[in-house]
Amino acid sequence: MKPEVYAFRWVPPFAAGLVRDLRVRWALEEGGEPYDARLIGPEDQGTEGYRALQPFGQVPAYREDGLDLFESGAIVLHVAERSEALLPRDPVGRARAVAWMFAALNTVEPHVQHLASLDFFHADEDWAKGARPAALARVESRLDVLAGRLGSRDHLEDRFTAGDLLMTTVLRILRETDLVAKRPALDAYVGRCETRPAFQKALSDQLAPFAANANDSNARHPA
Amino acid sequence: MKPEVYAFRWVPPFAAGLVRDLRVRWALEEGGEPYDARLIGPEDQGTEGYRALQPFGQVPAYREDGLDLFESGAIVLHVAERSEALLPRDPVGRARAVAWMFAALNTVEPHVQHLASLDFFHADEDWAKGARPAALARVESRLDVLAGRLGSRDHLEDRFTAGDLLMTTVLRILRETDLVAKRPALDAYVGRCETRPAFQKALSDQLAPFAANANDSNARHPA
Repeated sequence: MKPEVYAFRWVPPFAAGLVRDLRVRWALEEGGEPYDARLIGPEDQGTEGYRALQPFGQVPAYREDGLDLFESGAIVLHVAERSEALLPRDPVGRARAVAWMFAALNTVEPHVQHLASLDFFHADEDWAKGARPAALARVESRLDVLAGRLGSRDHLEDRFTAGDLLMTTVLRILRETDLVAKRPALDAYVGRCETRPAFQKALSDQLAPFAANANDSNARHPA
Repeated sequence: MKPEVYAFRWVPPFAAGLVRDLRVRWALEEGGEPYDARLIGPEDQGTEGYRALQPFGQVPAYREDGLDLFESGAIVLHVAERSEALLPRDPVGRARAVAWMFAALNTVEPHVQHLASLDFFHADEDWAKGARPAALARVESRLDVLAGRLGSRDHLEDRFTAGDLLMTTVLRILRETDLVAKRPALDAYVGRCETRPAFQKALSDQLAPFAANANDSNARHPA
């Protein structure tokens, strides 16, 4: 069997291109691995069957012969381990790439996602206005570190790795803000990673069903 | 050289036993690997030298012959890869353990840490009171999933792994609340992991310098 990636059949526009199955699709494309998308909707997320595959009911989940896997970071690492396009073979280069994977998901994404949640879901609430300055400051400080790290580098280490893949998908969450755009090194970095053919293919394949299902109210994921 | 783990020489009581070097110490103890602690203070976190090792200025950082590493998750994974005590050797068991590592750090910890930050740093602010119900609900839903997953299991998979190690350190962040205690399966799980001799040794070694430096104002990390 080809690997199977579980993704949503529809999401509202604010989430299109940000759903975490993009990470797994991108990794598979970089490795030149064909896969099948399994599209689900909100009615599937709470079922016993889906929860056996993805305990938190989230997207993505992943299946291959003999292995069910969840967590975008873990799936990307699993895919990356069989592709030198994503992880250097030398142990030091590999460990450094993995450090940036965890930095993306544990040091940068929590703050980026929190800020985005305030802006997307709570913008009109007084408490969110009170919470935003500190949330913004935490994001700015992480972005300053990343911009400083990049400087004139093309990537976080000396070549593209799964660390850049995850970091790019995290920084994309800020696309409604000027936080990346106003840092030239960071803006160029995201652009550089997004122009990779594997990213473009993965993005296009995530978006296609959203367009196809946009007028089918039964397929819609509630906003 | 023995591996070196960078840790704080002092933190205020609310953070003692929670600083992320505990994860790395615990992993090294499970693997029976001696290491040296390198104790730092706030005056070190912003230096060029420390930022070369840990770009975000956080703790822990890690050095061994030929490799500088950062991010507690990445260091734990690196250490775990040389110890069957932390990662099964069979590829499926290994991938499943890594999935729980990422679940701990990317699906559970962001919400747990956000709630703890509201309670520790912003409890008296009106906006934090407004933010707390939604923050709490997100934590409760993750804990419900974990408690359901555990059921009568001793660990998240069929044996202790680095996934349980990280999940335990994440759940400990809630120690000032009843959120773990009121879920018997989760409470027993955390207790089971915390009674491991490797955890007890790691915790004791993290705490020892805090006690030794408690009366030395020069050693203190600002709260």
